[in-house]
Amino acid sequence: MTDTRVFNIAVIPGDGIGKEITPQAQAVMEKATEGVAQFNYTQFDLGADRYLRDGVILTDEILDEIKKNDAILLGAIGDPRIKAGVLERGLLLKMRFALDHYINLRPSKLYKGVTSPLANPGEIDFVVVREGTEGLYAGAGGSTHAGTNQQVATEVSINSAHGVERVVRYAFELAMKRRKHVTLVHKKNVLVNAGDMWQRIVNEVAAEYPEVTHDYLHIDATTIFIVTDPGRFDVILTDNLFGDIITDEAGAVVGGVGYSASGNINASGEYPSMFEPIHGSAPDIAGQGIANPTAAILSAAMLLRHLGLEDAASRIEVAVEADIAEKGSTERSTEQVGKDILARL
Amino acid sequence: MTDTRVFNIAVIPGDGIGKEITPQAQAVMEKATEGVAQFNYTQFDLGADRYLRDGVILTDEILDEIKKNDAILLGAIGDPRIKAGVLERGLLLKMRFALDHYINLRPSKLYKGVTSPLANPGEIDFVVVREGTEGLYAGAGGSTHAGTNQQVATEVSINSAHGVERVVRYAFELAMKRRKHVTLVHKKNVLVNAGDMWQRIVNEVAAEYPEVTHDYLHIDATTIFIVTDPGRFDVILTDNLFGDIITDEAGAVVGGVGYSASGNINASGEYPSMFEPIHGSAPDIAGQGIANPTAAILSAAMLLRHLGLEDAASRIEVAVEADIAEKGSTERSTEQVGKDILARL
Ligand SMILES: CC(C)[C@H](C(=O)O)[C@@H](O)C(=O)O
Ligand SMILES: CC(C)[C@H](C(=O)O)[C@@H](O)C(=O)O
Repeated sequence: MTDTRVFNIAVIPGDGIGKEITPQAQAVMEKATEGVAQFNYTQFDLGADRYLRDGVILTDEILDEIKKNDAILLGAIGDPRIKAGVLERGLLLKMRFALDHYINLRPSKLYKGVTSPLANPGEIDFVVVREGTEGLYAGAGGSTHAGTNQQVATEVSINSAHGVERVVRYAFELAMKRRKHVTLVHKKNVLVNAGDMWQRIVNEVAAEYPEVTHDYLHIDATTIFIVTDPGRFDVILTDNLFGDIITDEAGAVVGGVGYSASGNINASGEYPSMFEPIHGSAPDIAGQGIANPTAAILSAAMLLRHLGLEDAASRIEVAVEADIAEKGSTERSTEQVGKDILARL
Repeated sequence: MTDTRVFNIAVIPGDGIGKEITPQAQAVMEKATEGVAQFNYTQFDLGADRYLRDGVILTDEILDEIKKNDAILLGAIGDPRIKAGVLERGLLLKMRFALDHYINLRPSKLYKGVTSPLANPGEIDFVVVREGTEGLYAGAGGSTHAGTNQQVATEVSINSAHGVERVVRYAFELAMKRRKHVTLVHKKNVLVNAGDMWQRIVNEVAAEYPEVTHDYLHIDATTIFIVTDPGRFDVILTDNLFGDIITDEAGAVVGGVGYSASGNINASGEYPSMFEPIHGSAPDIAGQGIANPTAAILSAAMLLRHLGLEDAASRIEVAVEADIAEKGSTERSTEQVGKDILARL
C-alpha cells in the first residue's frame, strides 16, 4: 500500500524557451513520482505575451492564486519586445519579494560529459546560497533632475540583520550536509557597513557550527578563483547582487547555464517556493524546439526535494547525470532530451 | 640636440611585494626615456609599516606633497596585520577620490607565451574603462542598531550625470583609437535609476561618434562572456564596482593579474594620475624576491604614455611582450625579470 501525497503546483512557463522546456520538466516530475505523489497543476499565463495582450504583469489577485500552491515551477522571463527590466522586476522579482524567497539556491556542478571552457576545470561541485530579498534588489533609490546634465541617480543596498541571519543559518545548515565549508563573499574592504554586518553574523552563527569551517573572499577575488580554482568552493554565501554575478560566471565554467537549476526558497514555509533554471528566455533560439530542458528538469528535481520527495529528486538527478555523460554533446531536440531522461527513470 | 623634459614623480611602493616590484618599474622607466626625460622621484613612506609605526595613513599635508608631482607610481596596498579596508580606504581610495581619478583604465591582453586558464582563449585584447570616483565607492551608507539583531546597514551608489558623462566620453575617444566598439556593462534591469542614466548618456555621446558601435550587457552576462568569448570585447565601459569585479576576472583569463596594469587617471590634468598593477600586495610571497614585476613595469609604461612619452611607453610594451613570449613560464626572481626587460630596451 502506498500513500499518494497530493500537491498543488503553479506553473509559469513565461517567455521564449520557457514555454518549451517547462512541459518536459513536468513530464519528468510526473514519472519520477509515480505512485508516491500527484500534482494538480495550475497554469499561469504570465510574461511578455500576456503583458502585450492586456497589460497585466502580475496583479495582487493573481499573486493570491499563486500563493495557494505548494510550489511554483517557472520557465523563463524576458522578451526583447519589452524594455529590459519591466517583466523582470514586475514579475520575477515581484514574486521573489512578495513570497519572501530569501534563499536563492544555485548549485554549480561540472557533469561528466560536459565540456568546460576551462582547460583544467578539475572537480567542480559547489552551491551558491544567494540572499534573495534585500541588498541592491530592494528597489530603493531614485533620480533627481532626470534626463539633464544635473541628474543624480542613486541605488541603495538595504541589509538587515534579520535578512542576513536567516540566509547565513541556511548556508551553515547546508554545509553540514556537504563538505562543511562556507565561504562568505562580499566586498567588505569598500562596502564596510554591509560587509561588517555580514561578517559579524557569519562569525556568530559559525560558533554554533563548530564542524563547519569558514573563510572570506572579496567578490573580485572570487571571480578569479571561479576560473582558476573552482574546486576550492563548497558553499558560497553571498548577497543578492554578488550572487547574481557569480552564479552566471559559475554557470559558464560548468559548461553553460543550460545545466544550472535554481530555487527561490521561502525556507520558513509561509509561502510557496519557486524553482527555475538560471538561464533566460533565449529569444534567439525560441520557437525552434531546440532549447535544452536540462536546467528546467534539474529545477523540477529541486522542487521535489523541497516538497520532501527526496527519493524522486535524486532519481531525476541520477538520470540527468547519466544522460549528460552519455549524450552530453549530441545535438538533440528539446523533446528528445526530455524523452531520453524519462526513459532512464 | 635633444630636449630633456623633467618630471616629478611620486613613488609609493606601499606594502608587501609593492616594495619589491616598484624599483624594477623605475629602472625600466629610466632606461626607456634616456635622453628624452628625467625624473625627480619623491618616495612616500605610506602603507602598513608607516601606519603601525606612527598611525599615519594619509594626511592632508602628505596629499599636498603628492599633488606637486606630475604622476604617481604605486606598488600595492594591503597588509594582513591591519583590518581589511583600513588602508585601502584611507590611502588608495582616498587618493583616487581626492585626486579625482575619474578614469580607471585597465587593459586586458593575453600575451603570447602566457597560459590562459581557458581551453580556447582566442585573441584577448580589450580595455576596461571603469569609473573611479562614484557609485558604491562614494562611501555613502551607514548602520543603525549596529551589532544587534535589529541592525540595518545600507550602502548607497551615487551616480551623477557629470561623473558618468566624462567617463563615457573617454571610452568613446579610446574606442576611436582601437577597434571602435564600446560595450556598456551595467545591471539596468534591476538598478534602473543608475542604469537608465548610464544608458541615456551612452546613447547621447554615441551620437557624436558615428564610427563607434556600441552595445549593452548585464554584468552577470558579462562574466559569462569573459570566460566563453573574451575576444568579442574592445572597450568595456562600466561603473566603479562592476569594473572592480570584471577586471579581476579578466586578469584571470589573461593568465593572472600579474600581467595587468592600471591607470587611475585624472584626464582633465588638474591632479596627478596614479599608475599601479591591479594585483595586490601578495603577503604570502612578499620578501622573497620572487614577485613578478611585469604588471608594475606595464603600469610605468602607462604612466609614460600619460606624460606624453608615447615612444618610450611603446618600447617598454614591446620589450615586455618579447620577454613574456620568450620566458613567460620560466621561474625568475623579481630582479631577473627586471634585468631581462631592461636588456631588451
Ligand atoms: C532577470 C534578473 C532580474 C535576474 C536577477 O538579476 O536576479 C536574473 O539575472 C537571475 O539571476 O535570476
Ligand atoms: C583594494 C580595493 C579597494 C581596490 C578596489 O576595490 O578598487 C582593488 O580591488 C582594485 O581593484 O584596485
